[in-house]
Amino acid sequence: MTGNSLDPYVAAYARRTTGMRASAIRALFAVASRPEVVSLAGGMPYLQSLPLKEIAAQVERLISDEGSVALQYGSGQGIEPLREQICEIMALEGIVAEPDDVVVTVGSQMALDLVTKIFCDPGDVILAEAPSYVGALSVFSAYQTEVVHVAMDDSGLIPEAVEEAIAGCAARGQRVKLLYTIPNFHNPAGVTLSAERRARIAEICRSAGIAVLEDNPYGLLGFDGATHRAIRADDADNVIYLGSFSKTFAPGLRIGWVLAPHAAREKLVLANEAATLNPPVFNQMMISRYLASFDWKSQIKAYRQTYAERRDAMLGALSTHMPDGTRWTVPQGGFYVWLTAPTGLDTSAMLPRAVTARVAYVPGTAFFTDGQGGSQMRLSFCFPTPDRIVEGVRRLGSVIDAEREVHATFGSGMGGPRAAGGIGGATPGVIAGVDAPSPNTA
Amino acid sequence: MTGNSLDPYVAAYARRTTGMRASAIRALFAVASRPEVVSLAGGMPYLQSLPLKEIAAQVERLISDEGSVALQYGSGQGIEPLREQICEIMALEGIVAEPDDVVVTVGSQMALDLVTKIFCDPGDVILAEAPSYVGALSVFSAYQTEVVHVAMDDSGLIPEAVEEAIAGCAARGQRVKLLYTIPNFHNPAGVTLSAERRARIAEICRSAGIAVLEDNPYGLLGFDGATHRAIRADDADNVIYLGSFSKTFAPGLRIGWVLAPHAAREKLVLANEAATLNPPVFNQMMISRYLASFDWKSQIKAYRQTYAERRDAMLGALSTHMPDGTRWTVPQGGFYVWLTAPTGLDTSAMLPRAVTARVAYVPGTAFFTDGQGGSQMRLSFCFPTPDRIVEGVRRLGSVIDAEREVHATFGSGMGGPRAAGGIGGATPGVIAGVDAPSPNTA
Repeated sequence: MTGNSLDPYVAAYARRTTGMRASAIRALFAVASRPEVVSLAGGMPYLQSLPLKEIAAQVERLISDEGSVALQYGSGQGIEPLREQICEIMALEGIVAEPDDVVVTVGSQMALDLVTKIFCDPGDVILAEAPSYVGALSVFSAYQTEVVHVAMDDSGLIPEAVEEAIAGCAARGQRVKLLYTIPNFHNPAGVTLSAERRARIAEICRSAGIAVLEDNPYGLLGFDGATHRAIRADDADNVIYLGSFSKTFAPGLRIGWVLAPHAAREKLVLANEAATLNPPVFNQMMISRYLASFDWKSQIKAYRQTYAERRDAMLGALSTHMPDGTRWTVPQGGFYVWLTAPTGLDTSAMLPRAVTARVAYVPGTAFFTDGQGGSQMRLSFCFPTPDRIVEGVRRLGSVIDAEREVHATFGSGMGGPRAAGGIGGATPGVIAGVDAPSPNTA
Repeated sequence: MTGNSLDPYVAAYARRTTGMRASAIRALFAVASRPEVVSLAGGMPYLQSLPLKEIAAQVERLISDEGSVALQYGSGQGIEPLREQICEIMALEGIVAEPDDVVVTVGSQMALDLVTKIFCDPGDVILAEAPSYVGALSVFSAYQTEVVHVAMDDSGLIPEAVEEAIAGCAARGQRVKLLYTIPNFHNPAGVTLSAERRARIAEICRSAGIAVLEDNPYGLLGFDGATHRAIRADDADNVIYLGSFSKTFAPGLRIGWVLAPHAAREKLVLANEAATLNPPVFNQMMISRYLASFDWKSQIKAYRQTYAERRDAMLGALSTHMPDGTRWTVPQGGFYVWLTAPTGLDTSAMLPRAVTARVAYVPGTAFFTDGQGGSQMRLSFCFPTPDRIVEGVRRLGSVIDAEREVHATFGSGMGGPRAAGGIGGATPGVIAGVDAPSPNTA
């Protein structure tokens, strides 16, 4: 059987597979790996500052001394020393939790999968930011949920928009199970949810009987070194919190976690066991030893400084090279800037021309399930060096400029993308009752 | 929130969670860890013969030399060198396959999850051996499938029973999606599917439009060193094959794989990415280097010798210590013996008394979804030393003996378990048209 033959299974697949499609990010990995292209597309952390020699020596001892434990099956909940350390990490964001309420997972991606699995039947609604993390949208789609996007502005999710979304679902007879949010240094929007709004949104969801799914991979990567208080810190009963070592240590070990109210935690352990038996013990012990014996807070500080420098390079280059009418967010941490191209430009259609000009990004539509984001894109500053970022943004500015000229010449006959509302959107205020956001303009 | 509070989410969970319950194996892990108990329950491989010093040195170099790749995100399909090596391993069982049709997963458990996810809607039927692997039953339950058990005898699945099961499902209007089988050194039954039956069952499934899900974690652990030709080797289009490094190398890395026809493989990669983004790159590179630079076939030979010695210890002890009327299978490889207690004994009810007598096993009902297996149990010989195995079986014999005396005194008023059919069953021939199996009698 080859890729060209018809699929004999076509009638045999589960209904949920109709929502499984290759993401824009996936298609771009091949492009991004070509050295002449400046990839502002991928979300790979920059690992060069890790103390590899020391980690190598430590892992050598781990296998020599405890190999028959590290290489064996383990608990479906994860090893206890690591769960204790995870509680200490979460305490930095005001969370008081017991190791028994933590479940270690194969990256926080797997935690997303498990939470969706235990909460959502087909047709259930998940509220998610507009835009939202593409990997979460893949999970939600695989479980046949419906995503309702909720507008953000530069202070994150807009509480009134959350209320309207809930009311709209109720009016349509839809059951809302979760509000999914990345409150800190949002992927892809680059914004952070304000403290006032955290309390307000937690209250709205509690009142509506909707659990908050707080996804926080970037929380310790704030460029000023300050951490924001987690939503979970003030609402232990209605918030399910996801964390990850992918950005604070390394993603190649695939270790994340979920902190959940006790009853849900029990179901998550069972679901974790059914999916993987247990997260890899070796990887857990490796991270646990790293946390115990390295100055991991200094390592995170080094990461922060690296990413702050790159953020600055990107923002400076955007100011220099972007044509009028281009807008973008100003992240205070994390990996991403969310850019809105001048009116009428279609970032998906433009991508092949950008790659020809040797720069790559992720088109905005990847971050929505409803066709929004057509004039937007995500730019990552995490992996390329500052020089490369500046060069990439310069190339991107030229591509947008050329595109705009074509658009000005041929007008709307080119078929511009669907107007996007909310953060950086081309059409402010599309969500009724919400004022236009105040994006940063070039 | 504590474990004692009512579950506020009780109305919010997905319907699939009703099938998620703690397995008997899981509950037993705590028991098995007490040193005074001889655990014949767990399926942990015996890792002491691994060359830990050499592996440690190699992993040290992996991180020193290639840490920034090994600790980074990777492909959702798995790294190519490992997929090439996997094809070489599968060639030992007659499989001709391309690396492009292999997807690396977080253990073959995750492959089970992904295959079920892309093929099965709620209510779809999966045919599975009677008994079947408990971890697979957990997955099938999480996707709300219905499992129809098919009788085995000492030559594995009975083709006529497969045909009858398919006909029965058709008569009830049920859609059968998969036949799940462990053809080699079955978990828990300990039997191996004969070559003639492999061809016959593949033909039956192909004709009926049912994909075969061939799960083969133990295939290289045949005690005579011979490998059985995989079902996949003679039917590339209708067999989805699962493999694992958990028993041939080590389970703590959680690396397995699925080989699928091309169209299904594409969907599996998308499902893999949605669930975990990618299997841990570090673990994949570690196994790839192990395979490239160690004499891994000699290592597997060492494993085989260890397990053969333990199998012999268990079989000898069973002959010596089991009361009349006890029957068991004689495995030619793998980890497990399947035991049928004398008529009327309930192995679930007996378990607490066995643990009091310092021996543990897994009650047979864990391996069925339909209540069969009440007088049966799985005994593992993989982890304890031969001396401990003999002592554990001696204790178990005493417990069964005592139980049988009580049963003889109080008769059926004790409420014996539901009669089991098929392999080692108390009631031979319960599946119409199938002759009684010929179990081994003490």
